Amino acid sequence: MTKVLIDCDPGIDDAMALALAAGATGLDLVAITTVGGNVDLSLTTANALALREFLGLGDIPVTPGSAGALMHRTVRAGDVHGDTGLGGAVLPPPLLAVAEGHAVDCIIDTLRAAPGEITLVAIGPLTNLALAVRREPRVVEWAHDLVIMGGSFTRGNHNPAAEFNILADPEAAAIVFGAGWTVKMLGLDVTLTAMVTTAELDRMRPLGRLAELLVPAAQFYGEVTEHGGPAIHDACAVAYVLDPSLVTMVPAVVNVETVGEFTRGMTVVDFQLRDRRPNALVATALNVPRFWDLVLEAYGRLAARLGG
Amino acid sequence: MTKVLIDCDPGIDDAMALALAAGATGLDLVAITTVGGNVDLSLTTANALALREFLGLGDIPVTPGSAGALMHRTVRAGDVHGDTGLGGAVLPPPLLAVAEGHAVDCIIDTLRAAPGEITLVAIGPLTNLALAVRREPRVVEWAHDLVIMGGSFTRGNHNPAAEFNILADPEAAAIVFGAGWTVKMLGLDVTLTAMVTTAELDRMRPLGRLAELLVPAAQFYGEVTEHGGPAIHDACAVAYVLDPSLVTMVPAVVNVETVGEFTRGMTVVDFQLRDRRPNALVATALNVPRFWDLVLEAYGRLAARLGG
Amino acid sequence: MTKVLIDCDPGIDDAMALALAAGATGLDLVAITTVGGNVDLSLTTANALALREFLGLGDIPVTPGSAGALMHRTVRAGDVHGDTGLGGAVLPPPLLAVAEGHAVDCIIDTLRAAPGEITLVAIGPLTNLALAVRREPRVVEWAHDLVIMGGSFTRGNHNPAAEFNILADPEAAAIVFGAGWTVKMLGLDVTLTAMVTTAELDRMRPLGRLAELLVPAAQFYGEVTEHGGPAIHDACAVAYVLDPSLVTMVPAVVNVETVGEFTRGMTVVDFQLRDRRPNALVATALNVPRFWDLVLEAYGRLAARLGG
Amino acid sequence: MTKVLIDCDPGIDDAMALALAAGATGLDLVAITTVGGNVDLSLTTANALALREFLGLGDIPVTPGSAGALMHRTVRAGDVHGDTGLGGAVLPPPLLAVAEGHAVDCIIDTLRAAPGEITLVAIGPLTNLALAVRREPRVVEWAHDLVIMGGSFTRGNHNPAAEFNILADPEAAAIVFGAGWTVKMLGLDVTLTAMVTTAELDRMRPLGRLAELLVPAAQFYGEVTEHGGPAIHDACAVAYVLDPSLVTMVPAVVNVETVGEFTRGMTVVDFQLRDRRPNALVATALNVPRFWDLVLEAYGRLAARLGG
Repeated sequence: MTKVLIDCDPGIDDAMALALAAGATGLDLVAITTVGGNVDLSLTTANALALREFLGLGDIPVTPGSAGALMHRTVRAGDVHGDTGLGGAVLPPPLLAVAEGHAVDCIIDTLRAAPGEITLVAIGPLTNLALAVRREPRVVEWAHDLVIMGGSFTRGNHNPAAEFNILADPEAAAIVFGAGWTVKMLGLDVTLTAMVTTAELDRMRPLGRLAELLVPAAQFYGEVTEHGGPAIHDACAVAYVLDPSLVTMVPAVVNVETVGEFTRGMTVVDFQLRDRRPNALVATALNVPRFWDLVLEAYGRLAARLGG
Repeated sequence: MTKVLIDCDPGIDDAMALALAAGATGLDLVAITTVGGNVDLSLTTANALALREFLGLGDIPVTPGSAGALMHRTVRAGDVHGDTGLGGAVLPPPLLAVAEGHAVDCIIDTLRAAPGEITLVAIGPLTNLALAVRREPRVVEWAHDLVIMGGSFTRGNHNPAAEFNILADPEAAAIVFGAGWTVKMLGLDVTLTAMVTTAELDRMRPLGRLAELLVPAAQFYGEVTEHGGPAIHDACAVAYVLDPSLVTMVPAVVNVETVGEFTRGMTVVDFQLRDRRPNALVATALNVPRFWDLVLEAYGRLAARLGG
Repeated sequence: MTKVLIDCDPGIDDAMALALAAGATGLDLVAITTVGGNVDLSLTTANALALREFLGLGDIPVTPGSAGALMHRTVRAGDVHGDTGLGGAVLPPPLLAVAEGHAVDCIIDTLRAAPGEITLVAIGPLTNLALAVRREPRVVEWAHDLVIMGGSFTRGNHNPAAEFNILADPEAAAIVFGAGWTVKMLGLDVTLTAMVTTAELDRMRPLGRLAELLVPAAQFYGEVTEHGGPAIHDACAVAYVLDPSLVTMVPAVVNVETVGEFTRGMTVVDFQLRDRRPNALVATALNVPRFWDLVLEAYGRLAARLGG
Repeated sequence: MTKVLIDCDPGIDDAMALALAAGATGLDLVAITTVGGNVDLSLTTANALALREFLGLGDIPVTPGSAGALMHRTVRAGDVHGDTGLGGAVLPPPLLAVAEGHAVDCIIDTLRAAPGEITLVAIGPLTNLALAVRREPRVVEWAHDLVIMGGSFTRGNHNPAAEFNILADPEAAAIVFGAGWTVKMLGLDVTLTAMVTTAELDRMRPLGRLAELLVPAAQFYGEVTEHGGPAIHDACAVAYVLDPSLVTMVPAVVNVETVGEFTRGMTVVDFQLRDRRPNALVATALNVPRFWDLVLEAYGRLAARLGG
């Protein structure tokens, strides 16, 4: 039973990743922390609260964190995720409130309380994690693992060089990649292959109440066709935790460009180690059919629990 | 009675600043936090502990903070401050230990507990303050004031462009200057005029036990002559808190260069506001005779208390 | 009959590109200019002189140009091209000397003398071209076309971000891409598909004297196997001039990163024009079988001329 | 008789510098080249032509050069120099045209023709000189000396960090300072002391026709009072050539910042050589009374020649 803390900015694909975590067997979601990213912190937090209840996640804490990037140059992706951050999906208003305190403290305290047990899954900008690392460097040894959705070793999405999550806080990403652990990086190179096509949409439609979240969210995110559609980036990170054999990982030295005129926020991935210790395992391939089997099986399990 | 929290990296001139705070009337030192800077955090913290007892500061908390810069490119000034960080001065080993927790939390909690009352005096790299601001943005409104020793509007000391405290963590300085408050900046332009000459040294020699700290520290720091000598930069920040009329302050827009090839860590001070809100008051002149009167009077008062 | 001026830094693949130009029908090579790049200017010039005679190029002028990059931060690739720059190939010492003057003047004067007629083919660092553009901006309108081997829209070769020719002088590349013409850019994305495999090597071996250049050069450049081998990057640019239908070209806005910490020398290729005028056509695919047919046919024609 | 080539962008203080060169004894002005700077190249060239005739400079060549900066990010100072670039002064339209060719060639050819004899005086952006150095590196050894007006070791004028001439082309300045010669740099630190006060204006008024240039130009440039007024920066460079004893020069390593976010175009002047070869002698003081005596004496001599 892998204990997982998810740091996120829901966000359509964050919602799909949380749904995967909620439906999966063998994963114990111990806390959710939020960060400003796809949309503002107030919205990502509100969405996390709504999703906690909608997905039946009980009373695990939802703790809000950083509203903006470390150096306060904010980038948003509201046009991609809609005004609410969840595309066309409308969730019931949540009854429970956020936990006391700040995401940074939640991360530090959760890891300190169970050293070696918690896997961090970060699927938004890395601001909270960077602050946690600088405030308490021992989180690096306390964490069982760190899995992120972010970056790319070929091209970006927000611009030709940079992927959104890294671009949204390059200095934080540089801190996280330089902190001493081996970051498991699932970047655009693989997440763009995790596309919702009509085949997957057809398997989501019968999922009762859960389909009311998944289907309009996916459709808002991009046109779904037989051979293409929107990619649910963040779910890849959770899927990797559930079954690492889904993903080919290659050791690399990853540097984050913070200075470039046209390349700020780029993850510069060097697979040629030349005697350097790799600071990351970078995903180079995803077994897409097995990925969807895992995801849709979990969604089915969750749908059965949530009813219709 | 001004309540003051001092964030420092002792450091010879930090010691002299703490001695000034200890001897001054009208100043209530409520906490000391430490940061890696002039020398490593372990030493700055050990020195802060030793100084607390040597200067008779009772049980005010000494809380250690950040060991390195935000982006972890560390610069040290050990050659200036000696291996111990206090030059030739040797203090008795302290009996009391550090406070629980981290400087960042101490800063946040101290300000939250007394909003509008605490003046922050930062005389080392600004790492702790930057982390506090990002972890809890309300510290900006809670602080009564923020006074720093750092920067310059003409030339640097560590290199032609940059002053040491800013160069030691330019990103932190950029965060602090951009946080929304009006930073009171005492840079090299004035602190280099606060020189210990033979006249001041002669007034320190009779100060009993206190002289055992001040005299060798000053002498280690640089040659003392009739017309020149080492500058006790950090004491200027405390002196400004005690008597703002000592210093001419001019509103300015201050940007911190984080990118330059030859100018990283430079405070770019623009006195031409052109409709921009000034984010700093920058010291342009120090009344040196009155400064020394204030300092030596406080040292005398403290020496009488400490005995000989 | 396309009139071509080739600016080059031979270099193994430069040699193969010159051989292609020498053997091709429908191409009139009017001048060769040299630049420091793969190896030092003295060697690239000596190699250009030797190649002119070895390839039977008659008395077309060979004019030496810039020894180093505009901002004088030099990168070399001698380990790739061997000490002589031509790998294992040994050519007879040339009899004819270089032309008077400087490559920059040769470029300007050649274009001025035949406005609208000359295609520039640049297969080394872009220093000479950048200086020509700044010295005489009208070269941009005088040139019939500009074709370069350089850059990439995915990954680099000298490091993860940058291709060698651009990295060797990023400021020059920025000047050339910003000069107002539409640069035809053949980058690593296609040139890495122009690999010498055993099949091509077998077709080169019978080429008599010419084989004495081609075969050892290719073999020095990298191991030749049935399914892989060294890429003859520069020949792609000449091939494109001979038959544009070999290459898929896509309009793009190309910016050259000059500032990045890890990305200096990267060509940031944006295919999403968003109302911006494209400053380049970027090669995205090469018809490899037809490319080799064109190249080997030209080599055969040249070999027949040179004898054996 | 010092032979001088002046590269300039007239510009009010350029006009005053040319008038000084025209009136001085012991200086042989052999050529004028122009560059875009204070105002556009078309205007600086037109002004240079008009000044050549107005100042009675005979038929020395005026050769136009670079219209913009090396990397084409142009900064102008038209608000300082007026729409015509000469403030309120109106000169008769010139009869003679520009010389054939380009300033870069003029510089190279003039130096080649008299190696070791020509002093370059550059009082605008350094674009032409940088191109000359890269096109023909031997100009560095051919030049007798290089004197520039530009930079500062304290603060800028166009912004807190940068002086106009350097900011207008930082890459060119970096090339020139890195070319191997010892640049004689007269920066704002001294040129701002060369102020036209009412005393100097009173000595200019009786100068007949020459006064029609000098007086309105100076007055346009800034308010003239008893104790302050506009600084005629460029004239300092010519004055230094005429009498080096007017200026205190200190060896330094000068780097030009090209990358900084707030410091692009700054001359970072390090007087601490630490075993490095100085690449510049930097002016730290000007003997202002003797400067004005020299200048006004030359103006008087010229005025007598020009009549009134």
